[in-house]
Amino acid sequence: MTADVLPSYLAGAWSRGSGAGTEVRDAVTGETVCAVSAEGLDLEAAVGHARSLGWSELQKLTFPARAAAVKSAAAALQARKGELYELSARAGATRRDAAVDVDGGIGTAMVFASLARKELPDSVVIAEDEPVMLGRQGTFAGRHVLTTPRGIALQINAFNFPIWGMLEKLAPALIAGVPTIVKPATPTAYLAEHAVRIIIESGALPEGALQLVSGSIPGLFDLLGGQDQIGFTGSAQTAARLRADAAVTRRSARFNAEADSLNCSILGPDATPGTAEFELFVDALVTEMTVKAGQKCTAIRRALVPADRLRDVAEAVSAKLASVVVGAPGADGVTMGALVGLSQRDDVRAAYARLVAAGSAVFGDPDKVDVHGAEAELGAFISPLLVRVDDVDRSEPHEVEAFGPVSTLLPYSGAEQAIALAARGEGSLAGSVVTHDPDFARDVVLGMAAYHGRILVLDRDSAAESTGHGTPLPQLVHGGPGRAGGGEEEGGLRAVRAHLQRTAVQGSPAVLAAVLGLPQS
Amino acid sequence: MTADVLPSYLAGAWSRGSGAGTEVRDAVTGETVCAVSAEGLDLEAAVGHARSLGWSELQKLTFPARAAAVKSAAAALQARKGELYELSARAGATRRDAAVDVDGGIGTAMVFASLARKELPDSVVIAEDEPVMLGRQGTFAGRHVLTTPRGIALQINAFNFPIWGMLEKLAPALIAGVPTIVKPATPTAYLAEHAVRIIIESGALPEGALQLVSGSIPGLFDLLGGQDQIGFTGSAQTAARLRADAAVTRRSARFNAEADSLNCSILGPDATPGTAEFELFVDALVTEMTVKAGQKCTAIRRALVPADRLRDVAEAVSAKLASVVVGAPGADGVTMGALVGLSQRDDVRAAYARLVAAGSAVFGDPDKVDVHGAEAELGAFISPLLVRVDDVDRSEPHEVEAFGPVSTLLPYSGAEQAIALAARGEGSLAGSVVTHDPDFARDVVLGMAAYHGRILVLDRDSAAESTGHGTPLPQLVHGGPGRAGGGEEEGGLRAVRAHLQRTAVQGSPAVLAAVLGLPQS
Repeated sequence: MTADVLPSYLAGAWSRGSGAGTEVRDAVTGETVCAVSAEGLDLEAAVGHARSLGWSELQKLTFPARAAAVKSAAAALQARKGELYELSARAGATRRDAAVDVDGGIGTAMVFASLARKELPDSVVIAEDEPVMLGRQGTFAGRHVLTTPRGIALQINAFNFPIWGMLEKLAPALIAGVPTIVKPATPTAYLAEHAVRIIIESGALPEGALQLVSGSIPGLFDLLGGQDQIGFTGSAQTAARLRADAAVTRRSARFNAEADSLNCSILGPDATPGTAEFELFVDALVTEMTVKAGQKCTAIRRALVPADRLRDVAEAVSAKLASVVVGAPGADGVTMGALVGLSQRDDVRAAYARLVAAGSAVFGDPDKVDVHGAEAELGAFISPLLVRVDDVDRSEPHEVEAFGPVSTLLPYSGAEQAIALAARGEGSLAGSVVTHDPDFARDVVLGMAAYHGRILVLDRDSAAESTGHGTPLPQLVHGGPGRAGGGEEEGGLRAVRAHLQRTAVQGSPAVLAAVLGLPQS
Repeated sequence: MTADVLPSYLAGAWSRGSGAGTEVRDAVTGETVCAVSAEGLDLEAAVGHARSLGWSELQKLTFPARAAAVKSAAAALQARKGELYELSARAGATRRDAAVDVDGGIGTAMVFASLARKELPDSVVIAEDEPVMLGRQGTFAGRHVLTTPRGIALQINAFNFPIWGMLEKLAPALIAGVPTIVKPATPTAYLAEHAVRIIIESGALPEGALQLVSGSIPGLFDLLGGQDQIGFTGSAQTAARLRADAAVTRRSARFNAEADSLNCSILGPDATPGTAEFELFVDALVTEMTVKAGQKCTAIRRALVPADRLRDVAEAVSAKLASVVVGAPGADGVTMGALVGLSQRDDVRAAYARLVAAGSAVFGDPDKVDVHGAEAELGAFISPLLVRVDDVDRSEPHEVEAFGPVSTLLPYSGAEQAIALAARGEGSLAGSVVTHDPDFARDVVLGMAAYHGRILVLDRDSAAESTGHGTPLPQLVHGGPGRAGGGEEEGGLRAVRAHLQRTAVQGSPAVLAAVLGLPQS
């Protein structure tokens, strides 16, 4: 029996690709969920639909009106989020994991909508800064304005956060007035499809503002040019391939990438066993290893610990990992779900093997795990795995990413070495320093800032309210240099402005006022 | 006799590439000026020198201190600018042309230095915005900081403005603390070399902050990665090739391109013969065609004129072009110099042939020009050339750029068609609208903003102080979407910030204050 092909929403209608497609299996039971295929779908018509109807419909709305539409879409998801939770379990996500994805995504869209309603003008144009006087007589001035490009956004998302990953890109694009085609990752495309279905059924968005391609997109880049923008989250390899496309290199379509990185967390020299910071470090590491079974692009892959404390940390983390219960999401006592699929588990095992060859295993067996509430053989289950690499000059801990519940302990001595080791990651999305010593915090934060999109300083003072190492926030930039893709998302209304074209307009003060629709004084 | 190879300034010393190199000839006399070769030069050592000494020396200076160094460098150029004027003539530049390049460049560096001294903190870190409170109890907050990447800037410049083009990139990079390697275009590399020599001799900059490669740079991209940035001005083809390099696609080196574009100027329907705006339009077109013999990436390539006024404009422009005197810079009465070289003239003639085949010649003969003060056969002289294309749907006027004193008249009817034709350029650095009708100005400016980095509204009110269609200003962004390269330079302190890494720092308010070196309240 062939599986049902997952629908796409293109040019105002739901349709299904032809052919057998790629089969997607339940991460827990191995049962078939759906097939994914965009074969035969008319992507050129979809792009045309976005460019014409989608663009003009969004342009009829001012920034606050678009923000209201985004808020309505988020509210529709909120009202039906139980459906998304249920589906999330099929991807191996526990309730906690699904909350990060579903509630995190809805909350992110709500924050963007709120910021835009409060701070953006009731217009389709933003005047930036103040006018710059360019002559002594005051007859000639310049001003920067931001307008919506005459193009579309193609958003290519990762499998790990199908809802959050979609909404954090979609909300700013729509508020900026850019009609969007979403292309989810195949393994969790059915979650994105359901979220898009809820949004479309809600009628919150004007037709053409949001389309969905469930499946691969050969030829779609050929339709994109200098007014279009591509947002990508996923592997560095795919980012490199897409970024080399003529749409980007020749026609200057904007390209923003967010790729996985080997994020580090640094335990401060002051944080000895028994201090609050020692506990916070251990807790954070276990959390980051186990949420989404470690399938997070911001997870802590490298735990940097003062050399004399490596054994203490190894013991404390191992003790906590020992109480992690792996199994079917929702089953009694389960605290960590499955990887998204069996091939993902193969990849994690292979990467783990390279890491452990550079050092030694501290906790966990990649081939053995007690599974609760599911058949261990059928689902993509794996034990949390902690490695220790004492030879910090080896490349593996800084380059090999096991995209699962895997982390490496590394010893260091002094702020300077901690910074140097952090930099060995060649660019990360997130880093953290767990210390109550402000001098150490300052040295390390400033020392490693250039390699990071976000750095958390965690201590006893902020722990209760801290959002944690791995959590991007809509108010703060998300992205990072180098290996992390060199991009920037979120960051409050920066994310909206990043979708707009900046133009310097020059002329008499009266003309500048007329262009911006201001009263001519 | 082989020509002397132009020196490079690398790793603290002047050195010459080996081999015969590429011969550079005087644009006016055809005499050999120098040879350009970087063969055998140790570029890896140069990159290392920038990364180590250059970076740490610049990091010892705060933003205002770096700005003071840039100001000193600009002052050194100012004191010896006669030397640069003299050399400019060898590239075919008149005194007016050289002023745009030399004085424009020095002024640009001065403006960046002034803005930075006034507005940037006496620190090596910039705190952006206000802290964002992330918890109800006020114990957890976030703030964006900007720090200098741990890398270098490689700046690849175009031949047409060797001084301005270098300084508009160099000044913001140095103020941001990024050590820079400059790679000038071969045909005018001797001008860049002399400017760098003046700066180095002045001692204004710390050693390692500025290096110069006179010649090609095979293998240099292999040394660049995620902390480095590449600034490129030149052809779209070269931009596409460089942007596809693994340094950019795989290692996420930042890449900013500024490419030539088919900029338009639009005459408003109100601007009938006899109005100030009609005259301003004609004057601007002639100026943009003849300054630097039209070798300007912002020059007006497409003059959009109300259909019923095409003949009036053609006549008025032709009358002015008839009084242009082509010849040796400095020779009596000469108002337009030579193209940079004979192969450039071949390119211009070939492009002109394509344009004229799409319409008809209005003024000038590509193969015939009266030359004053020089041998017409030896120098790269060409007549100003005006074309008219009535079939505006043809692709040539919107796609074929003759990088010389060449422009095309195109008829239009109504703001909507003017906007649509402007958009046919697929992205431009600069556009202008010459009108005294604020409604037309608004419609056209907002309608074509998304395709432009800068738009000038020219009218009788601002004409006396207007800096003109083709002049980028350090206070306003320079760049443009699509064909113009998709980049952004200048724009005041945006240019400095664009060289820095933005990082969101999270923690308790006390830690954020400590990181930024603020008193802990």
